Amino acid sequence: MRNIETPALRFEINARDSEARAGVLTTRRGQIETPVFMPVGTAGTVKGIRFEELESPDLDARIILSNTYHLWLRPGIDVIKAAGGLHRFIGWDHALLTDSGGFQVWSLGALRRITEDGTEFRSHVDGSLRFLSPEISMEVQAALGSDIVMAFDECAPGKAGHEETERSMNLTSRWAKRSKIAFEGLQAEGADTGRVEAESLSGAQALFGIVQGAAHLDLRRISLEQTVDIGFDGYAIGGLSVGEEKSVMFEVIEEIAPRMPQEAPRYLMGVGTPEDLVEAVARGVDMFDCVLPTRNGRTGQAFTSRGKLNIKNARWTNDSRPLDESCACSVCRRHSRAYLRHLCMSGEMLASILLTHHNLAFFLDTMRGVRQAIRSGDFPKFRREFTGRLDANGE
Amino acid sequence: MRNIETPALRFEINARDSEARAGVLTTRRGQIETPVFMPVGTAGTVKGIRFEELESPDLDARIILSNTYHLWLRPGIDVIKAAGGLHRFIGWDHALLTDSGGFQVWSLGALRRITEDGTEFRSHVDGSLRFLSPEISMEVQAALGSDIVMAFDECAPGKAGHEETERSMNLTSRWAKRSKIAFEGLQAEGADTGRVEAESLSGAQALFGIVQGAAHLDLRRISLEQTVDIGFDGYAIGGLSVGEEKSVMFEVIEEIAPRMPQEAPRYLMGVGTPEDLVEAVARGVDMFDCVLPTRNGRTGQAFTSRGKLNIKNARWTNDSRPLDESCACSVCRRHSRAYLRHLCMSGEMLASILLTHHNLAFFLDTMRGVRQAIRSGDFPKFRREFTGRLDANGE
Repeated sequence: MRNIETPALRFEINARDSEARAGVLTTRRGQIETPVFMPVGTAGTVKGIRFEELESPDLDARIILSNTYHLWLRPGIDVIKAAGGLHRFIGWDHALLTDSGGFQVWSLGALRRITEDGTEFRSHVDGSLRFLSPEISMEVQAALGSDIVMAFDECAPGKAGHEETERSMNLTSRWAKRSKIAFEGLQAEGADTGRVEAESLSGAQALFGIVQGAAHLDLRRISLEQTVDIGFDGYAIGGLSVGEEKSVMFEVIEEIAPRMPQEAPRYLMGVGTPEDLVEAVARGVDMFDCVLPTRNGRTGQAFTSRGKLNIKNARWTNDSRPLDESCACSVCRRHSRAYLRHLCMSGEMLASILLTHHNLAFFLDTMRGVRQAIRSGDFPKFRREFTGRLDANGE
Repeated sequence: MRNIETPALRFEINARDSEARAGVLTTRRGQIETPVFMPVGTAGTVKGIRFEELESPDLDARIILSNTYHLWLRPGIDVIKAAGGLHRFIGWDHALLTDSGGFQVWSLGALRRITEDGTEFRSHVDGSLRFLSPEISMEVQAALGSDIVMAFDECAPGKAGHEETERSMNLTSRWAKRSKIAFEGLQAEGADTGRVEAESLSGAQALFGIVQGAAHLDLRRISLEQTVDIGFDGYAIGGLSVGEEKSVMFEVIEEIAPRMPQEAPRYLMGVGTPEDLVEAVARGVDMFDCVLPTRNGRTGQAFTSRGKLNIKNARWTNDSRPLDESCACSVCRRHSRAYLRHLCMSGEMLASILLTHHNLAFFLDTMRGVRQAIRSGDFPKFRREFTGRLDANGE
């Protein structure tokens, strides 16, 4: 099988189990086993967790996601350039994927105005009027020096009608083309990432295209075709988990993922729960990001092998068991539900820190299990048992 | 020299440099080198830091303080008993000192009513009417199973007049006697700490008395005499850093610390900045606790070898230096002021986590330096240089 290989990225699939694939994504920042979950580090920090913990064997995160929109507005690109790029600024030497800002601006809703050229919006930080376009997004992502750059797209609402979605999808396609042209220009000229060492950007970044089309399968297929025609190092499914029914989400994944180029990494953006991840892997997806483990960790919700668990529930008041008896993470090795509940009820920061750690450990460990199962040809059994256990809910 | 030795506590002084002393405090939870700084874990958590970090070589905290008042109100003693005591409840196997609740209740101000019997107050958690007395405080601290128990005291305001202070000091003395009687009863009967293993409390806890007297040196000396007459395993100076001038605080320490029993540990409660600690060591103090490194860490203030540094200051926007160029902690090894400022300005939890870690590392490292200097007879030089560097302020 031919696999994608650019100066910036190599992707090798080394096991399959029906549509599920296990492989290795190699960036200049090291190897990433797939399927992979990427913790979300919006503003250059995965909320509530230290980088040392992300690197620890408990988590062993090899790639995190950061948000172009947020970093562009604060601290601003000049600051990150002066530090020598995002890796140096935040102190993370592993791979970084940055989104393009398209989704973030879209989620501002009324605050934005979309034209052919790009999107005008008001900064959530200082209210100033800002403008983001495919070209600007590529420039910003070059300055960030991310290892995987996302094309600038527009996202239609999950329940958008056919006409609205078609218009939006075609705009995304034109923006994808402009993204690629701008990206290639920046790569060719070895754009200034501000990196201190005499390291050229040429061929250092990879670019992923994004398939849109909301819940309309015909438009999704056209969007896939348009995106593949332009040609990217990897392909993402965007515009899911944005208000549509879960059944619709899986319909789209099932329709699109297997049709995406076999040899390129496939990235499902912003999804989902652990069971969503396993189900999407079964449909051929390789990469994921989601705020659930971190965001829900901050509000007292733990993901466990037996389902979700709200640590504030009074039934845990005297429960000496760990969050998840099947989990070997440092939180489960040390702390009881009773203690974690106490921390949460007392509004202690440590509650967020510990739940975030456990949740990320659970997501990343689930992906480890998935990879192992695919490699040993046991994925259908893994999937069945994983989903079965979730019904034995801890609550 | 005769040193204090009870079943629960052994204290050995192994070096002196003028009034400054270095020694080892041995509890059944291990050895603690003195002078020692105790991080404050009010509600059973040192805010913003994991226990693994407290145990890491960066910090190597051997004893932390918890607040009887807070834990008594939430989660309540039943919950902690059910878990088998505070160590088990929070997952900390090293030494724990608990305050008596006296100071906490005092700091409620108008919400409390003090009688000979004890203090009536409204819970800050649920507004319920509660009553704390020497006997109840001892019972609660027995249930917590803390290694060092503090006598129940009343604290006069820093600027209290002679008469008010005298009344308060005499009450503290009577409460100290009642504390000791209650404590000894609990120790003798092997009170139920709820510990799961068949471990008796008998002789497992040590009790410290507290010297009060506000800024009145004559009353301070009487209070010391009264407290020593009752007889405790260690002696604390309470009621400082509560609104009095810093010069007054040092006057009291200078007057009282050297007169405290030579063979027992001397504990200065709730003090202070790194320079306060070094100055108090020079006057013969062995133990400290203070919320400064954790509380100020959460508001963006770093303690460094060159003075305090407010990380929000715009001058750090592009500063690639660590918080403290002389610090070897994991935060200073990895992160720049520019990044920490960004986190703080963005309201990211990681700002608090990292500043708390660094501040605790700096406090604990300062105490390591102090101990080393005393042992090598270089304490006056250490003290001079330490204070001199602070003037070369980073701001």
